[in-house]
Amino acid sequence: MANPQIIIVPEIRDLVRREQWDELRDILAEIHAADIAEIIQTIDDDNEKVNVFKNLDDDKAVEVFEHIEGDDRSAILPLLPNREQKNILNEMSPDERADFFDEITAEEVDQYTGLLNKGAKEETRLLASYPPDSAGGIMTTDFVTLSEDMTVAQALKRIREDAPDAEQIYSLYVVNKQDKLVGIVTLKDIILANPNRKIGRMMDHKVMSVNAESDQEEVASLFKKYDLHALPVVDQYGTLIGIITFDDIIDVIGEEDTEDMYRFGGVKETELTYFQTSSSKWARQRITWLLLLVVTGFISGFILERYEEALTTVVMLAFFIPVLMDSGGNAGTQAATVIVRGLATGEIAMNQALRVLRKEVIIALMVGVALAILTALRAVIMHSDYSLAITVAIAMLATVTIAKIAGAMLPILFKKLGFDPAIMSGPFITTIVDIFALILYFELARLFLGIA
Amino acid sequence: MANPQIIIVPEIRDLVRREQWDELRDILAEIHAADIAEIIQTIDDDNEKVNVFKNLDDDKAVEVFEHIEGDDRSAILPLLPNREQKNILNEMSPDERADFFDEITAEEVDQYTGLLNKGAKEETRLLASYPPDSAGGIMTTDFVTLSEDMTVAQALKRIREDAPDAEQIYSLYVVNKQDKLVGIVTLKDIILANPNRKIGRMMDHKVMSVNAESDQEEVASLFKKYDLHALPVVDQYGTLIGIITFDDIIDVIGEEDTEDMYRFGGVKETELTYFQTSSSKWARQRITWLLLLVVTGFISGFILERYEEALTTVVMLAFFIPVLMDSGGNAGTQAATVIVRGLATGEIAMNQALRVLRKEVIIALMVGVALAILTALRAVIMHSDYSLAITVAIAMLATVTIAKIAGAMLPILFKKLGFDPAIMSGPFITTIVDIFALILYFELARLFLGIA
Repeated sequence: MANPQIIIVPEIRDLVRREQWDELRDILAEIHAADIAEIIQTIDDDNEKVNVFKNLDDDKAVEVFEHIEGDDRSAILPLLPNREQKNILNEMSPDERADFFDEITAEEVDQYTGLLNKGAKEETRLLASYPPDSAGGIMTTDFVTLSEDMTVAQALKRIREDAPDAEQIYSLYVVNKQDKLVGIVTLKDIILANPNRKIGRMMDHKVMSVNAESDQEEVASLFKKYDLHALPVVDQYGTLIGIITFDDIIDVIGEEDTEDMYRFGGVKETELTYFQTSSSKWARQRITWLLLLVVTGFISGFILERYEEALTTVVMLAFFIPVLMDSGGNAGTQAATVIVRGLATGEIAMNQALRVLRKEVIIALMVGVALAILTALRAVIMHSDYSLAITVAIAMLATVTIAKIAGAMLPILFKKLGFDPAIMSGPFITTIVDIFALILYFELARLFLGIA
Repeated sequence: MANPQIIIVPEIRDLVRREQWDELRDILAEIHAADIAEIIQTIDDDNEKVNVFKNLDDDKAVEVFEHIEGDDRSAILPLLPNREQKNILNEMSPDERADFFDEITAEEVDQYTGLLNKGAKEETRLLASYPPDSAGGIMTTDFVTLSEDMTVAQALKRIREDAPDAEQIYSLYVVNKQDKLVGIVTLKDIILANPNRKIGRMMDHKVMSVNAESDQEEVASLFKKYDLHALPVVDQYGTLIGIITFDDIIDVIGEEDTEDMYRFGGVKETELTYFQTSSSKWARQRITWLLLLVVTGFISGFILERYEEALTTVVMLAFFIPVLMDSGGNAGTQAATVIVRGLATGEIAMNQALRVLRKEVIIALMVGVALAILTALRAVIMHSDYSLAITVAIAMLATVTIAKIAGAMLPILFKKLGFDPAIMSGPFITTIVDIFALILYFELARLFLGIA
């Protein structure tokens, strides 16, 4: 999508250069923090970036900083005046701060921790104790709690007091004296209720929560299934320690899907964006699989060597190698795509492997017969050789079938073994199928073409 | 994820068979609508499904119906008593009803429209007038509007009246006398404000909205970028006609990512789940690409035929065909994966094609040199042939470079031409790269191995 805000960039840079601070401030006040963050990231000059920052009011500066992506944050912060650094670090939402601390060096963490006030320090320590892709790693500690014995009027007073800092006030969690999560009320319920009603009488006791150690992918699937707005996070004692809101989950879903697609495409993911990742880093992220697959590709070479006799006798055999290999790879990739995605969205459960196998074999026979006929026709038309036609037709049908079975079963097998099924990437399945396809092809050739 | 609710299924079916309605009702009242929907979908017997439905209270029946997926909905509804059909159809949220009407036959639409009351009929007609993947197609018409001249107290009264039916009451939209969208206030603002304050004085005039015709993918990226909770939808005159909420968007993101992955894997998407889609339908969804790719695969065969002489003279050349083809396919798929995803998430903009090209060429040279050395070593070690080694090394480096360029540039080109970049699937790029790789390989062989 084209970004209409980009056209403001020259105007803003111009104001910065001419040091027209008042005018700059007026323009920036009108622009959404997410857009200012984007604008700052298109400016190359550090000094100019800082001058944009200095002309934001305190709250907006925090929001803009939260929206900046990747290492630009760690580049900008040290350039800001100490007072502004303190404001940003203390006022940013605890989960964003924890993410930022994950991105920077240990020395920077030490230095910035020194600028935090006591509460912020504790929050950061708590969040840092959980892996970044766990519920504890993505939760925030800015939330409102109510107690059972409050009246609706008292609850509303508490909400009003806590609202300015809270990440959201639309789902409200009720805790007992030991801070254990015991219920949930929505702001909607509170607005509709009699002011004298006790929270304990109207709350829903069946409140869903996740343990702080839960994987973020699991959390995302709860949000999807139950259309949640927010989800409380508890520790092993059931104590409410944080909440996760839907906007964190939208990011998680994107991240998890990117991770799946990268793995499936045979690329290791990086935490930075495409351009922020250096070319040599990208080369490293891609070379592992390529090297591994070249080595397995050599196996295909060895197989051809073993059948050198056959190849020399009937050189026509070579002409069908590309189409067999491509069809096997394609058919396998198709099956793997559908199965890997089905496992990720929960559409396909682990105990349905047999049903998947049956279905894929039927599909393979349907598409395989069509491809086999087409390939056989080519052999007959171009080479008028019926034995060759039978050989390539059977080889094609068998290759497609093996490919569909491998493409469907390997991801399920990998998931059973506790790995990410997306590791069973298209390239990997293609290479495995190639090996089987070639052996099969030449054995069939020996059988039907009478080669030794 | 394993589903703990599944263990209740035998108990529920047992209660249904023994016609223990009171006990069944008590159990169902304790279970979340999303889980009941899942349970109903695991029951094969239609009669049992209906009996579960009959023992839900009216509101819960609507919620459960909304959570049921695919054609199970259209199978269950006709089996329910007329009164229950009416309740479900009239009370379900307008966007869910529109989705349901999209799934069923024209006769069924006619029949069920007869059961709708006037308001529901109009809502359905409005939503049906937009494509299902547009903002108008995913919006709901159940929302609360405020006017500028209301006081906070009056607004709160309006919210209390409308809340029971509204999809959400946390973002409230302000319209003028002509129903044009003029501002936004949050429930948080209203709770914190003085009861006598005018809405027009406190509302934010800069309210983001989308046109009903906008693509759902565009809407999703606004939610992501601005961390939105809800987004108003306007028609071409700026009249507020609906809202989209975050839970719709979570579904959209999942759908769009599935669509991208399927296209990229060379599979046409279906609207139903893996198991709901019949094997013959799956075969049709996959055969188009396979047939097309078989035909392009034949081109590779023709190329080999053209170089029959070379192949017959130096049969060793055949041994390196699989590894060259696989490496080209893999390298191209890697680049395409990263670029297709980058275009989808907005990380890569259309005007950055040249930067991408430069980066991919550098990456290609880095990984290409490594793969070339490895392949040359194999030629030297196994065949002690230095000319062959030079041939395969240069062929490998060139193939990887062409593959990375094609993998990166074809998705961008396709997007420029107005197509979905994910159509440039892994299998398609593999097949294209194969053709170039083979020609190049044999031309190099002629050059270095002195074949005619």
